[in-house]
Amino acid sequence: MADKKMVEQVTSMDEDFAKWYTDVVKKAELMDYSSVKGCMIFLPAGYALWENIQGLLDKRFKATGVENVYMPLFIPESLLQKEKDHVEGFAPEVAWVTEGGGEKLEERICVRPTSETLFCDLYRNLIHSYRDLPRIYNQWCSVVRWEKTTRPFLRSREFLWQEGHTVHETLEDAEERTKQMLNVYADFLKEDLAIPTIKGKKTEKERFAGAVSTYTIEAMMHDGKALQSGTSHNFGDGFAKAYGIEYTGRDNKQHNAFQTSWGVSTRLIGALIMVHGDNDGLVLPPHIAPVQAVIVPIQQQKEGVLDTCRKTAEESLAGIRVKIDDSERSPGFKFAEQEMRGFPLRIEIGPRDIANGECVVVRRDTHEKETVKLDALKSYIPELLERIQGDMYDRAKKHLDSSIYEAVEYEEFKKILDEKPGFVRAMWCGEQECEDIIKADTTATSRCMPFEGSDPISDKCICCGKPAKHLVIWGKAY
Amino acid sequence: MADKKMVEQVTSMDEDFAKWYTDVVKKAELMDYSSVKGCMIFLPAGYALWENIQGLLDKRFKATGVENVYMPLFIPESLLQKEKDHVEGFAPEVAWVTEGGGEKLEERICVRPTSETLFCDLYRNLIHSYRDLPRIYNQWCSVVRWEKTTRPFLRSREFLWQEGHTVHETLEDAEERTKQMLNVYADFLKEDLAIPTIKGKKTEKERFAGAVSTYTIEAMMHDGKALQSGTSHNFGDGFAKAYGIEYTGRDNKQHNAFQTSWGVSTRLIGALIMVHGDNDGLVLPPHIAPVQAVIVPIQQQKEGVLDTCRKTAEESLAGIRVKIDDSERSPGFKFAEQEMRGFPLRIEIGPRDIANGECVVVRRDTHEKETVKLDALKSYIPELLERIQGDMYDRAKKHLDSSIYEAVEYEEFKKILDEKPGFVRAMWCGEQECEDIIKADTTATSRCMPFEGSDPISDKCICCGKPAKHLVIWGKAY
Repeated sequence: MADKKMVEQVTSMDEDFAKWYTDVVKKAELMDYSSVKGCMIFLPAGYALWENIQGLLDKRFKATGVENVYMPLFIPESLLQKEKDHVEGFAPEVAWVTEGGGEKLEERICVRPTSETLFCDLYRNLIHSYRDLPRIYNQWCSVVRWEKTTRPFLRSREFLWQEGHTVHETLEDAEERTKQMLNVYADFLKEDLAIPTIKGKKTEKERFAGAVSTYTIEAMMHDGKALQSGTSHNFGDGFAKAYGIEYTGRDNKQHNAFQTSWGVSTRLIGALIMVHGDNDGLVLPPHIAPVQAVIVPIQQQKEGVLDTCRKTAEESLAGIRVKIDDSERSPGFKFAEQEMRGFPLRIEIGPRDIANGECVVVRRDTHEKETVKLDALKSYIPELLERIQGDMYDRAKKHLDSSIYEAVEYEEFKKILDEKPGFVRAMWCGEQECEDIIKADTTATSRCMPFEGSDPISDKCICCGKPAKHLVIWGKAY
Repeated sequence: MADKKMVEQVTSMDEDFAKWYTDVVKKAELMDYSSVKGCMIFLPAGYALWENIQGLLDKRFKATGVENVYMPLFIPESLLQKEKDHVEGFAPEVAWVTEGGGEKLEERICVRPTSETLFCDLYRNLIHSYRDLPRIYNQWCSVVRWEKTTRPFLRSREFLWQEGHTVHETLEDAEERTKQMLNVYADFLKEDLAIPTIKGKKTEKERFAGAVSTYTIEAMMHDGKALQSGTSHNFGDGFAKAYGIEYTGRDNKQHNAFQTSWGVSTRLIGALIMVHGDNDGLVLPPHIAPVQAVIVPIQQQKEGVLDTCRKTAEESLAGIRVKIDDSERSPGFKFAEQEMRGFPLRIEIGPRDIANGECVVVRRDTHEKETVKLDALKSYIPELLERIQGDMYDRAKKHLDSSIYEAVEYEEFKKILDEKPGFVRAMWCGEQECEDIIKADTTATSRCMPFEGSDPISDKCICCGKPAKHLVIWGKAY
């Protein structure tokens, strides 16, 4: 029924998931490629998603005492180099500014790949006493990492993110904040993005450069691959030692401060697309959708149709993000567009509906269609949007739960990873060598050591057979 | 009465306005200097001002149909060079990235000083027909200009701003949007920042690199100097020609598109400080203040004091941005801090006040103190905040109006600029040579050819005596 012009070029997701993904981001006009190699353009429909993510997440941050700041874009080479592990982790992928104002610079400065070093430099100046602690700062900004292969929203040389950087009196305080922010992320993904995640700890190999421990939330995409969706790091006092962040404690002695950092990025837009999307395009959870309901007038030239649409938008749907599509295009085209853009509801209003005091309401997620009395919309639509939000989470959760396997033998482990999309739970000895072998054999990596369901399922490492130390969730990842 | 610890280091503004300014930005903890030469750190109190500016302005933008996007941080040298005037204007002050991912780049890329070139590149791809027009895009981001001398918020190598970039069918449409956005800025400064401005057109010398006309809003700081507070540019079809932005018109023929750009930056924070501040620190207009009222408990250890403060905040002041300062410091210290940070109102509540069902309300702008019944706060405070907002604008307007002079003879013109802080209205022949002479003689520059009050006051140029073409407002500027 829907005019397929807008969607005819979308590859089926079952045929070629990667191509489906790039088709959808282009056809839904979320992004465009730029003349700047490896960098992408966020078009209005894509940037609006980021604005909504920012708005909802920022509110959650501030409720926990976070204050926003803005640090310089540049980091002098000497400052970057103070923490050994950190510089080793990032130096290979930074971009260097070597000329400015028509002159060669005395010292190279890099475009920030992340801002730990700048925050350390600030904290060293701000913090003198335990009374100056804690500091719970965050910034929303863009960062640059010189990636070789790039993909819209998932990997690009510049991306948008937030990075929280905190400093505390004790290791325990730092650990508490690290976990608190991981929970903020997990709750946000669950409640607003309708994306279930697995919370856990990263192995040493996958840990952030310079961290004592890195916690992660791992989401599963429609194709069974993992997307690391948010990380939270406890730095202990490693950075404080390297950068000299000391304070006079309650005991009147000098101590190193303890730090954390945590971030999510525009990768979350990639997650939204790959968790909820279908062969008609995007499917957006109502909480995050820039438009929650599109009203499509039928036979809009007929008297009273547009008036009723407007009245419905203003009166019955006040408080809902609603758009009336009164453009000159055919209803079929408008239907296809609503589907491609993933707006949760379509409301069709034509002369016959008006005569009956009704309208047709179509859900984007299930394509379900129902007739609703116009005077019932006011209470029905907000309730329906919440139901859609919940249903989308439930479907994603069911997909995640039904795509996690267990293995105790290596052959079985490899077979599952080869044949079935999803994650595998298996025991691990704790040695990086086994992670490397598994990656070489299967392309899967250790996603995390989960907080929940971590009871041993065998006493041997899935790879080398030596005594197992941890249960690990393995998966192929974006 | 107030504990002066926090303010004792503030230089008097009448003694040394520049030093007063840097004292205030530091003592009010708006910013900090960084290890990155010429770049500043926005601390929470400073960044909160920018967040409020963004929030209020973005709403005004969207009401006129603006859509937000995000463009890459980098511009390849070849793309920057396509529009001759533009590259000449910006090339001397850009920062160049020459190495990335461990390799020397084949082509230098600059960190954006402004993004006209990137938007042109995008629009060339997006626009084919008149049906694709107009596009009204904006982005909030940071830009880099390699300044030699810097000053907090006013001039730094990196600053935060928004840049709107639009594309239209006709020159008239572009002109209308250029003026519309100038009015959005002027209204925002007037209604939310309580800052009066003079709207006008820039002379060719002061025009944006590549523009056909540049409009400006000029504000006057407390010391009589001008701060260019927002600009809006009509590009005609110059960029479209250079970048090949063509569309098929209603006449079925190919046409060049017409463009505009417009921006305001974190300079506005500098304007807020220098228009409203006094010798006790910042004075913030209520609409933009992160905290609108601070409740200071008196004898807070006494039973019922903190409870009454909390109840007042939650019930009587719901809807107001309120903070209870229940820290361990003395009331005097808290008073001085409220003054330094510029929060519009202080509400003192102690045991005696509670017994009388009262509190003491102190205005930051006038230091006026009054006793108000606790049960009257709910209706009184919102009204008082609006009154303060209006009074602050009125005072700034009076200062502006009373600091504009007129001159018809050059000696008189120079004398005024030498002796009196403020602007001078004088006639001009239209030749850049006279602007250069005036600048050399007085350090003043042409601020704008005002839209209002532009009737000739003489028929001779103030400088060369040749026939006058325009009335110009001259002033020394930041």
